[in-house]
Amino acid sequence: MNSKTEQKAAHRVVIVGAGFGGLTAAESLARSAAQVTVIDRRNHHTFQPLLYQVATAGLSPAEITAPIRSILGRHKNVEVLMAEVTAVDLDRRVVQTADFEVPYDSLIVAAGASHAYFGHDEWEKFAPGLKTIEDALEIRRRILLAFELAERQAAAGEHLAPLNFVVVGAGPTGVELAGTLAEICRHSMAGEFRAIDPAKARIHLIEGGPNVLPTYPADLSRSALEQLERLGVEVLTSSMVSKVEAGAIYIGETRMEAAVILWAAGVSASPLGKKLGLPTDRAGRVLVNPDLSIPDHPEVFVIGDLASLKDVRGNLLPGVAQVAIQQGRFVAKIIRQEIARGMRRTPSANGREPSRPLFRYHDKGNLATIGRAAAVAEIGRVHLSGYFAWLTWLFVHIFFLIGFRNRILVLIQWASSYVTYERGSRLITGGTNLPGWRGFHPQGPEAERGPQEISAAGRK
Amino acid sequence: MNSKTEQKAAHRVVIVGAGFGGLTAAESLARSAAQVTVIDRRNHHTFQPLLYQVATAGLSPAEITAPIRSILGRHKNVEVLMAEVTAVDLDRRVVQTADFEVPYDSLIVAAGASHAYFGHDEWEKFAPGLKTIEDALEIRRRILLAFELAERQAAAGEHLAPLNFVVVGAGPTGVELAGTLAEICRHSMAGEFRAIDPAKARIHLIEGGPNVLPTYPADLSRSALEQLERLGVEVLTSSMVSKVEAGAIYIGETRMEAAVILWAAGVSASPLGKKLGLPTDRAGRVLVNPDLSIPDHPEVFVIGDLASLKDVRGNLLPGVAQVAIQQGRFVAKIIRQEIARGMRRTPSANGREPSRPLFRYHDKGNLATIGRAAAVAEIGRVHLSGYFAWLTWLFVHIFFLIGFRNRILVLIQWASSYVTYERGSRLITGGTNLPGWRGFHPQGPEAERGPQEISAAGRK
Repeated sequence: MNSKTEQKAAHRVVIVGAGFGGLTAAESLARSAAQVTVIDRRNHHTFQPLLYQVATAGLSPAEITAPIRSILGRHKNVEVLMAEVTAVDLDRRVVQTADFEVPYDSLIVAAGASHAYFGHDEWEKFAPGLKTIEDALEIRRRILLAFELAERQAAAGEHLAPLNFVVVGAGPTGVELAGTLAEICRHSMAGEFRAIDPAKARIHLIEGGPNVLPTYPADLSRSALEQLERLGVEVLTSSMVSKVEAGAIYIGETRMEAAVILWAAGVSASPLGKKLGLPTDRAGRVLVNPDLSIPDHPEVFVIGDLASLKDVRGNLLPGVAQVAIQQGRFVAKIIRQEIARGMRRTPSANGREPSRPLFRYHDKGNLATIGRAAAVAEIGRVHLSGYFAWLTWLFVHIFFLIGFRNRILVLIQWASSYVTYERGSRLITGGTNLPGWRGFHPQGPEAERGPQEISAAGRK
Repeated sequence: MNSKTEQKAAHRVVIVGAGFGGLTAAESLARSAAQVTVIDRRNHHTFQPLLYQVATAGLSPAEITAPIRSILGRHKNVEVLMAEVTAVDLDRRVVQTADFEVPYDSLIVAAGASHAYFGHDEWEKFAPGLKTIEDALEIRRRILLAFELAERQAAAGEHLAPLNFVVVGAGPTGVELAGTLAEICRHSMAGEFRAIDPAKARIHLIEGGPNVLPTYPADLSRSALEQLERLGVEVLTSSMVSKVEAGAIYIGETRMEAAVILWAAGVSASPLGKKLGLPTDRAGRVLVNPDLSIPDHPEVFVIGDLASLKDVRGNLLPGVAQVAIQQGRFVAKIIRQEIARGMRRTPSANGREPSRPLFRYHDKGNLATIGRAAAVAEIGRVHLSGYFAWLTWLFVHIFFLIGFRNRILVLIQWASSYVTYERGSRLITGGTNLPGWRGFHPQGPEAERGPQEISAAGRK
């Protein structure tokens, strides 16, 4: 810190992560007296509720993302740095990256969470999860490639293994992926293949608990199950995955061949949580004070998926956008107020700031889509299923997308898909190796087998 | 080949490559008596004239591509296989891939061309070229990352090397890249950075010959040069690149530091051309007969960028979409006619089919865009520059895009960009290593330097 800084003494707020929580906090601190630095390892904010649309070739990555710099650029007191935070020195009050440090007066850690493999990280390469744009593109690549390789194999007259898609985990993401996959197989791909029939592909949705959408009310869980089965998804509940390998998944002792396996189960908080050196829950979420600060450090807040906090009824707050957004707004308000009062903080004996309000989550409702005109919605005491739930889902998601252009583009994509059943971004990029495919050779592209002839008649 | 095939004896046409040439040939053979197989190593057709828009974050990959299978799927006599053709056995009349063979009665090789490094393939990793969607995404990643890393470095108070962008080759692609880069620096990024001023970035366009757009008439070359300079591009003509290394390029003996180097020079035909075992020109293009067949094999045609053919005035036909499209239509017509006549071919002494027409290219004009409201157009004897040339370019390109949805989406993107100066797909995917960046460490992300502090005041 140089002398100029000490003279000016603007209150420095560092925000780690520009997901829903971090971005909301930054926007709530715009035009305040604070000097805000947002650090994210990506240059873009991702609208995660629509990631499954990128993974299933319905939308382009750019349509559900926006450069963090563009969103925040108009606020002169906010700067954006693209870097990966490696640690926080709570005593010196600096955030550390591999090659520089940023000092703070207040810190908001909103580094998010990812999927978890229950201690089996080696499953990841066979069963990718869905948390980033890169994840979505990898899943898209695998889904589209499975059809192409099946067609090629069938055309070459080889024995064709069943075209099985397996989705693990029946939370909102798993349900969305399975439902959309069913639609793709039955409709989008119809008529475009000669040697295989995409409609004969099977989609399995595997859930460890007894119900799909386990956090939803029982009637909506049941409705979601019915809607999934109507789309042709085979749902297996109370089924634990015991092993994943190239091209196969085990449910207990039973082996199931699979062209593509997708992982939508488990939560694992950002490793930054553990690095703070504070107590965390089993998923690695930081146990925060009711004002979202951490013990003994009223100047440090943890929000969003990385925070573990229970509501008044003792239920853990869910890892959804609404919680993160409300928390971002809540901590920004505390910081603004304390700057305005020129307050020096003096933590009480239990390590909390006594004068602060406590965070309360206002649940505005929950929405999960299953497919075309299929969804469930819980809005207060109103439970909706089917077409109206789906319409609600559609407009809520377009409304919350960032950027006017993205809203228009997504609206056109969906209108077009609704009429034509086509998916808007069906391109395979990033290579043609598919782990688990019978033709897959880790050492290179299909080098080992001898050539086989394709004859026009052999193609049926 | 099995007995069933011999009974039916449908004329089997294999088309290698689904670029402009191959796709046009396939569509021209739809609903004919031929049994058509299109083989491409990608699942999508790429509208190459707009690749530079993906590379400069203006459009999404899906907006300039379409699945080959969707384009051709409605034609029952056409099948599509995603595979890489490794060789052609001209005697046995089979196309070979790594794991199967496809027999043909007529073959159309339309495998295209790529950029060339004049024997210095080791330059590629420092100076990527632009021929595929993956290339475009890599270039986009480097351009956007250069700004992010510069901001980070400046914020950390490190010595900042000039933010130099170098484009090698002033053909249409090089001119488009340089012009758009200038626009991005002056307009799109303005106001979003705190530590650097993107408008101070420099864009260098380096051309070995004496003029930009060397294949265009002299007045349009001059106009293009003026339009480039007005946008702030520094043009160096008659300048040969002697060496490329991490973060620097040499013009003769002069070393120029560069954050990003892009390669838009040279042509290298697909290696499949050489594998046919026939005479090629220096760029690897197959020297074809005037009917586009190859010597002694009237059943094999080579079209598009892979073919080397001179027009009546002795000029080599250019490697542009129009040539490939006309050639695709031409050979498809020959094949249809010969199937209709049930003709058995008997090559003449010079290895040509005597009864066939000769290919003639009808030049409908040439268009190159430079930037916002800046372009040149040659339409017959009419030469246009500036706004009207640009409007012509715009509508021609939207018209020729494949798919109604893509046309609408691109139109919206451009209208929006024109008003806001924003680029529609400014996201960085695929890692944060930038070869040539001073902070770049091939062994891992910035591991070697010690941390440096960023203070609010140090950020200016």
